[in-house]
Amino acid sequence: MDNRAIGVFDSGLGGLTAVRRLHEIMPDENIIYFGDTGRVPYGTRGRDTIIKYTRQDIRFLLERDLKAIVVACNTASAAALDTVRGEFDVPIFGTVEPSCEKARQVTKNGRIGVIGTAATVRSDIFVRSLRALDSALTVTTRACPLFVPLVENGRVARGDVVIETVVREYLQPMKDAGVDTLVLGCTHYPLLHDVIADFMGAGVTLVDSGAEAANAVRRAVTPAAHTHGQTQYFVSDDPDSFTQLARLFLQEDVTERAALVDIAAY
Amino acid sequence: MDNRAIGVFDSGLGGLTAVRRLHEIMPDENIIYFGDTGRVPYGTRGRDTIIKYTRQDIRFLLERDLKAIVVACNTASAAALDTVRGEFDVPIFGTVEPSCEKARQVTKNGRIGVIGTAATVRSDIFVRSLRALDSALTVTTRACPLFVPLVENGRVARGDVVIETVVREYLQPMKDAGVDTLVLGCTHYPLLHDVIADFMGAGVTLVDSGAEAANAVRRAVTPAAHTHGQTQYFVSDDPDSFTQLARLFLQEDVTERAALVDIAAY
Repeated sequence: MDNRAIGVFDSGLGGLTAVRRLHEIMPDENIIYFGDTGRVPYGTRGRDTIIKYTRQDIRFLLERDLKAIVVACNTASAAALDTVRGEFDVPIFGTVEPSCEKARQVTKNGRIGVIGTAATVRSDIFVRSLRALDSALTVTTRACPLFVPLVENGRVARGDVVIETVVREYLQPMKDAGVDTLVLGCTHYPLLHDVIADFMGAGVTLVDSGAEAANAVRRAVTPAAHTHGQTQYFVSDDPDSFTQLARLFLQEDVTERAALVDIAAY
Repeated sequence: MDNRAIGVFDSGLGGLTAVRRLHEIMPDENIIYFGDTGRVPYGTRGRDTIIKYTRQDIRFLLERDLKAIVVACNTASAAALDTVRGEFDVPIFGTVEPSCEKARQVTKNGRIGVIGTAATVRSDIFVRSLRALDSALTVTTRACPLFVPLVENGRVARGDVVIETVVREYLQPMKDAGVDTLVLGCTHYPLLHDVIADFMGAGVTLVDSGAEAANAVRRAVTPAAHTHGQTQYFVSDDPDSFTQLARLFLQEDVTERAALVDIAAY
């Protein structure tokens, strides 16, 4: 048994969709969450900046004694993890590999779509990882830069002409490519599950990358001996605005207050 | 005559709409522009974070010998300028006062609307400044949090159902309030001039806050003795992605390469 906590970070609060999954499948674990709300979003930034921010996020979490770190941010996983993983003496789980493995398991026609931020798609790592698993897979990728601000402004409901128009524009190429599996390669996108599923149709399976990262951690780490783990939240901008948005992603009430971190000092 | 440069900063590249105005009305001035592209946007962040970032932006610019600084960011002007202005020994021009003076000059019915980011509207400074000029003015404010990401994704054209739907939602209360003057209290918004003007109708005057800040500088500073000033650009994220977006806001080709700044070190 291993009672050390699991560290989780994201550029903002989207990574809480991975925490939600950890709460479901590993309820006994202690979790330390850091959301870089003072510098969110990462997905529009250049690679060097994403690498620098990812290093700082990991250094902050490693002030605690952790048994694993989850990069619950596809942008950081895609653009930075290969570069920084070897610099730290802790197992680090990203979203890319487990999502690709899941997509390969569920596809029947071998045509997989991947959507994410501009930086995630530019990194091309989902294409390389899927091809490494099976060189016969056909992979279609598409950056969806308006999805994050639309989710953060609550534009997620069926019948909203704004989100439905943007979903149609971004995902028509996925339909045209005949994908039967679509990786939601950003931890904000599970909140768009219904409108995306409606547009893509019943024959397309959606893969939740944050949930797959959580599943990978469960398969790999030694569980805690105690029961009823606790989650501590840290952010780099106003902790008071954390609670409201956190509820959106966790789908549960948040009673814990987040603590403020000066992340640029790490 | 005073040949020292004018410093201009913004959370990102929206402030280039103010530089565009400076190029028009003060073509002989040297300009140093800093865009905090590594931490953009400011408008969604808490007040303490905006104050911290604003201080760092000013400290960076003051490494040069400047005759004035323009805060070409309504969020920083609204949330931070009153706090930090007295800490620095240089004239600092924000967007709020000159925009309010202009709005008061042009309104005929005394009903003025102000739109901006969440942080700008929360600060309530436009309301206080307008009331200080004339306590009989009726002021209606509205945060428009989707305008910045929509502009940055090029959703600015007439006929785009996404921007037209969002404009209608955000600005219907302005129409209902009967405003005859609308302050575009964010330096991204001039790119939405046409769709906003179409919706508000010919009887409503739009006030460009970045241009008004530039006008205020011209009225106050001693001009340069040389002719044909030069503009240097600095950013805190990938300089290579600067040129393309800069063209959007400057409405002119940008041949200068931007230089990278580690702004968190200031």
